[in-house]
Amino acid sequence: MKGFKFAGIHAGIKKNDQKDLGLIYCEKPSVAAALFTRNKVIAAPVILGKEKIKIGVCRAVLANSGNANCFTGNQGIEDARACSKMVADCLDIEEDHVLVSSTGVIGANLPMDKFKTGVPDVVQQLSEDNVDQFADAILTTDTCRKIVNRSATIDNKKFSIMGIAKGSGMIRPDMATMLAYICTDICISADDLNKCLSAANEKSFNRITVDGDTSTNDTLMAMASGTSEAQINDAGSKKIFQDMLDDVCFELAKMVVKDGEGATKLAQIIIKGAQTKKDAFKAAEAIAHSNLVKTAIYGEDPNWGRITAAVGRSGAHVVPEKIDLYFDDQALVLKGDWQGTEAEKKTAQIMKNSEITITLDLNLGQETDSFLFCDFSEDYVKINADYRS
Amino acid sequence: MKGFKFAGIHAGIKKNDQKDLGLIYCEKPSVAAALFTRNKVIAAPVILGKEKIKIGVCRAVLANSGNANCFTGNQGIEDARACSKMVADCLDIEEDHVLVSSTGVIGANLPMDKFKTGVPDVVQQLSEDNVDQFADAILTTDTCRKIVNRSATIDNKKFSIMGIAKGSGMIRPDMATMLAYICTDICISADDLNKCLSAANEKSFNRITVDGDTSTNDTLMAMASGTSEAQINDAGSKKIFQDMLDDVCFELAKMVVKDGEGATKLAQIIIKGAQTKKDAFKAAEAIAHSNLVKTAIYGEDPNWGRITAAVGRSGAHVVPEKIDLYFDDQALVLKGDWQGTEAEKKTAQIMKNSEITITLDLNLGQETDSFLFCDFSEDYVKINADYRS
Repeated sequence: MKGFKFAGIHAGIKKNDQKDLGLIYCEKPSVAAALFTRNKVIAAPVILGKEKIKIGVCRAVLANSGNANCFTGNQGIEDARACSKMVADCLDIEEDHVLVSSTGVIGANLPMDKFKTGVPDVVQQLSEDNVDQFADAILTTDTCRKIVNRSATIDNKKFSIMGIAKGSGMIRPDMATMLAYICTDICISADDLNKCLSAANEKSFNRITVDGDTSTNDTLMAMASGTSEAQINDAGSKKIFQDMLDDVCFELAKMVVKDGEGATKLAQIIIKGAQTKKDAFKAAEAIAHSNLVKTAIYGEDPNWGRITAAVGRSGAHVVPEKIDLYFDDQALVLKGDWQGTEAEKKTAQIMKNSEITITLDLNLGQETDSFLFCDFSEDYVKINADYRS
Repeated sequence: MKGFKFAGIHAGIKKNDQKDLGLIYCEKPSVAAALFTRNKVIAAPVILGKEKIKIGVCRAVLANSGNANCFTGNQGIEDARACSKMVADCLDIEEDHVLVSSTGVIGANLPMDKFKTGVPDVVQQLSEDNVDQFADAILTTDTCRKIVNRSATIDNKKFSIMGIAKGSGMIRPDMATMLAYICTDICISADDLNKCLSAANEKSFNRITVDGDTSTNDTLMAMASGTSEAQINDAGSKKIFQDMLDDVCFELAKMVVKDGEGATKLAQIIIKGAQTKKDAFKAAEAIAHSNLVKTAIYGEDPNWGRITAAVGRSGAHVVPEKIDLYFDDQALVLKGDWQGTEAEKKTAQIMKNSEITITLDLNLGQETDSFLFCDFSEDYVKINADYRS
């Protein structure tokens, strides 16, 4: 990606020998926008980031894994500031143009000695080619790195968007879920970038769930270097950019869910025919969050009773006798009637797939919504019962 | 319990050889009240029960496990009616005075042939001594029967309350969670019984969670035979009865949570110092429902970061720097500050207990609330991935 350099190293913040400190550097000041968690208990880097992003300019993002720097009081804020200053000093840029992110265990102070040696090291490693290293450095319980690349043209001028994200627990839709960074070489104003990012977030990261818990550190950030000649200057060019940004964010969101803690299957619930937009959202969210639905998917069981029970408690207007329910293209319930053992056998076969689309038509109106979610396995419990030990 | 007879048999509704059909019979028409699930997808017996309870009189309750008779359309209603009629015919009582309950798999029709042979059999077994048999017949994934007995006196006249309940999945507070039956020999009006039952429910079954899913079949029912000489005739006697009913319901609710699917520990979260009653409820509910908190408890990890993250996303007004957090009597966080490794070691020791009380003081006001919940183990996943197979 033109105009950006990346690095990722093991600085010793994590107990194991995995990478835990990453840096994105923009050669010129980038137009920047960011969305943060809606949790009221927020981490120090988020408190700082909310302030800093107001100027709409960014030159560097330092992100560490292994420690969330959350619930760390004034010391946490001071530490986050100190990290920004180290990066600014090493790169000889303004401190106001450095953002920091943290992810990992809540409630422990940042090991500042590791940053003192780590920041100069990570700056040393900066290169256009080190995207993978950065993507690895922000992972926690993720099992794979998450990078999406797209490019298109505006007025015959090529531009690109690259997205890098990490999951994979405490994932629930509430503004920007988890850590995700978008780098693009498009020419765009800070205001437009912010609007496009909010719109893309609404359709992607705000429509996923792994375990229903909202992180204290969620950050979705976009930086536009303007190093391509493609410009956002009218509705047409904006639409091209928005579509591509939507695509990048949706793909990243999908990767986050697919790699959700303990996940073995990726599922999408599509609600159709809701009376209101809110009803469609509520119905989709209740199903995506239901532990009983998620364990049934893990068990490859087309347990439509649990799906209808979840929609029944969702708060959405529901008339049981009107419900249609499909697994992929196979109808299992039509107008509230179970379609028999043959249909059940076919859906049971579909449940063996690694990606499943469940469509529930309330048949009460025209509104739709959808959620991506994963199944729920014993491994989720294992991962989270042992996380701190 | 004077005035009541009980029975429980294996009628063949469940695939295994466990009891699956239970009956409570009141020798005389009893004063009755009932609360039902708030789920909008409701089972046929609940649809019927909501109508029947209006007359405030009951003589018999037939309850089966293994099949929820939910999402079974008109056939389900007809089947539930047919079951009531069979009981009424066998006992030679009015059909209007017979209520039915079902619990088990959603979406399959009742196996009516099993009821045709089962109902006369279960009527045959009726006896004052067969409470255990009834309590066993309503169990699904429960691992133990749930019976609570209490007695007291009003004006030197003894009366008793007996509660019988079953859990143990799809447990979330929304009116009456799961199946629970209260039998008492007190003399009380239907109106008073209903009020007392609602008040007791609010403090017990509406403050528990196992997995956050609300059942389609939840029913809490009370029957008062009036066979004791104790009468509810003033505020004093009402308070004695209410306190005892509260106690019975709370104990039953506790038993349900303790025997929650896969549960190894019972936890109580107490919220203090909330600005509003609603905030106290929201904070308690968010923590009790958090999969991350529940898996941490399973892992015996005093993971206060997850508890504060859950309260942060709960919607309650929270000021992180004011939070106090206790495990039993041990403070781990005071005014937002972690109390150090010694305090953490002591809480880690407390986490090894089978019952744990977590107290979170928001220090913002005077309102309190609490929830009972259980931990989350691999066995919950195993139980629910395999339930229908």
